[in-house]
Amino acid sequence: MPNAPTDPVTLTADLVRCPSVTPEEGGALVLLGELLSKAGFACTRVDRNGVSNLFARWGDKDAAKTFGFNGHTDVVPLGDETAWTVPPFGAEQKDGFLWGRGATDMKSGVAAFVAAAVDFVTDTPPENGALILTITGDEEGDATDGTAALLDWMRDNGEAMDACLVGEPTCPDTLGEMIKIGRRGSLTAWFTLTGEQGHAAYPHRARNPLPAMARLMDRLASHSLDSGTDHFDPSTLAVVTIDTGNPATNVIPAQCRATVNIRFNDAHDSTGLIGWMQGELDSVAQEFGIAGEMKTKVSGESFLTPPGPLSDLVAQAVQAETGITPELSTTGGTSDARFVKDHCPVVEFGLVGRTMHQVDERVEVAQIPRLKAIYTRILRDYFA
Amino acid sequence: MPNAPTDPVTLTADLVRCPSVTPEEGGALVLLGELLSKAGFACTRVDRNGVSNLFARWGDKDAAKTFGFNGHTDVVPLGDETAWTVPPFGAEQKDGFLWGRGATDMKSGVAAFVAAAVDFVTDTPPENGALILTITGDEEGDATDGTAALLDWMRDNGEAMDACLVGEPTCPDTLGEMIKIGRRGSLTAWFTLTGEQGHAAYPHRARNPLPAMARLMDRLASHSLDSGTDHFDPSTLAVVTIDTGNPATNVIPAQCRATVNIRFNDAHDSTGLIGWMQGELDSVAQEFGIAGEMKTKVSGESFLTPPGPLSDLVAQAVQAETGITPELSTTGGTSDARFVKDHCPVVEFGLVGRTMHQVDERVEVAQIPRLKAIYTRILRDYFA
Repeated sequence: MPNAPTDPVTLTADLVRCPSVTPEEGGALVLLGELLSKAGFACTRVDRNGVSNLFARWGDKDAAKTFGFNGHTDVVPLGDETAWTVPPFGAEQKDGFLWGRGATDMKSGVAAFVAAAVDFVTDTPPENGALILTITGDEEGDATDGTAALLDWMRDNGEAMDACLVGEPTCPDTLGEMIKIGRRGSLTAWFTLTGEQGHAAYPHRARNPLPAMARLMDRLASHSLDSGTDHFDPSTLAVVTIDTGNPATNVIPAQCRATVNIRFNDAHDSTGLIGWMQGELDSVAQEFGIAGEMKTKVSGESFLTPPGPLSDLVAQAVQAETGITPELSTTGGTSDARFVKDHCPVVEFGLVGRTMHQVDERVEVAQIPRLKAIYTRILRDYFA
Repeated sequence: MPNAPTDPVTLTADLVRCPSVTPEEGGALVLLGELLSKAGFACTRVDRNGVSNLFARWGDKDAAKTFGFNGHTDVVPLGDETAWTVPPFGAEQKDGFLWGRGATDMKSGVAAFVAAAVDFVTDTPPENGALILTITGDEEGDATDGTAALLDWMRDNGEAMDACLVGEPTCPDTLGEMIKIGRRGSLTAWFTLTGEQGHAAYPHRARNPLPAMARLMDRLASHSLDSGTDHFDPSTLAVVTIDTGNPATNVIPAQCRATVNIRFNDAHDSTGLIGWMQGELDSVAQEFGIAGEMKTKVSGESFLTPPGPLSDLVAQAVQAETGITPELSTTGGTSDARFVKDHCPVVEFGLVGRTMHQVDERVEVAQIPRLKAIYTRILRDYFA
């Protein structure tokens, strides 16, 4: 009697019920570790600096071919919790969707590749082949101790993959329409403008940093970075917060802070962008007679895995299961593929990501088994 | 035998010992009511919504000329009580100063005009003249049931003044140097811009309210309202806070708030300024495709009592008693003159206000009898 197939919808729901807001493990990796161990995977927790990570191997280290899946179980914060129409960790199913934080990004993707991998090695174990699953508890936060820690550990322990698929949501509207073969870089800048406190009735006796901050953010936000390149969309800049915290309407505050996030294509590198922002900051600070400071963090430079065998394999599986020829794209934010690309060829494919990071995040239930089927076909074709 | 003169220093000390932090009466108005009643004033308590107010009339309603004094006995909170070097309601005298909350703002001013009024009607009662004293227990708070309540009651009871002097501290450094003949208006506006939350990597799928807020604040702050008018400094606009509260660098927030305070001269009224801000808000909201909301509060319209008989009267008395020619000014924040101006011509004159609202508030003792002498001369000249 064959084993009962692993239901990726049930597994997604179980994962959504784990409140794994970065960096909380929330029970998600424990759950996956147990499931994978039962299926014969050798599981190792590779935790670092408070971040939980799971490494799972099936098959021998000296296998001829090793295929990898990568994903994350951590989720972004809830945002305005009162605006949710469902319990955010409830995993309710209604209207054909499974609702909850992480339903799309990316507990359904993790559930689909874990279910595919478990059933594949159980039902049709590949001869002389191996699978490696790297699943992290910090992709949404700093990510310095997430997939990077897993890859460091793999290097130190002689572990290697020949190719890797990251299961992030990649499709804008319809399952199958997009594979990612590269990613834009990401850069965050924190600005602090400092003037001098005073009474709102006597602005000439104070030095208000707020008009300078408004001018600076307007300049940065309204600047066009580029119009896109051969494989990339235009670079984008998002002002993500401006904060002062002054409760008194008759007081001019001394300080204001703002944060900007840039996603940049291969027309830029982080050094050039930091130089541009520093120039704008200096110019505005001088214009308004206030002090300006900028700190930056580069999450990743832009990169590209040029079209080739791995993207062909994934594209053919997608075509066979969905009838759609996927576009090879480099749109979107960063993903942990920026770390994996230094290790082996990497592409990304997952379901429709429309509500990711939003209130009432939800995934179309029907997409989850279809994604599992695509991942299963990729494994079958890879080891054929 | 002439009556012993009323000592305004003792009266100031007695008032400072009344702990009349807004809206507590603290015994101050009771004390003044008794003193004024003994001197022949008809006293009426005009309390409203928990605020205590005192109306005192000497002379007939149909007198040919009625002169008014206005002031307040409430005081601002102590602030950091442990930072005071004296008991804040102790009224200690040392180093030539009388120390305590309200010593400057404005129990000394009230004591000076009450002492002047009592002695004047006792020693040289004016023929066919009348005096009205309006003293409130809420000038420092919302002030909606303070002097405004007294003036409402006067209107309902056929009471009227021909001119009024507000005894607030008006001199920056030296007694005699400044009379206030008007005040700028004050208007606060709270802005809320609402877009749609999303991922920082996909700005085109979110609607970020922050670039719109930056543009709006830049426009408001860089607009020159006017260059000043005959009697007023230029109007000012201060952005006092911009806040978002988004901790996640990869999330575009749904909402941002900002607060603006305008101090405006007689080139504007609040309706016009609110209309201007609403227009800028609507324009930016449309430009960026986000929703904008504005709430406003008008603390007072600007007003001016043009130089004329009343300011001449006060200036001549100041000149005669101090040897200083006072400047006719419209600087500073709001005062209850903003209510009185709808009733009769009003100017403000009082002593040096340097420590008002501060820890260790204190008044130079020598200024108090000199202020009483100025007020006495004003009464004598007015009824001459």
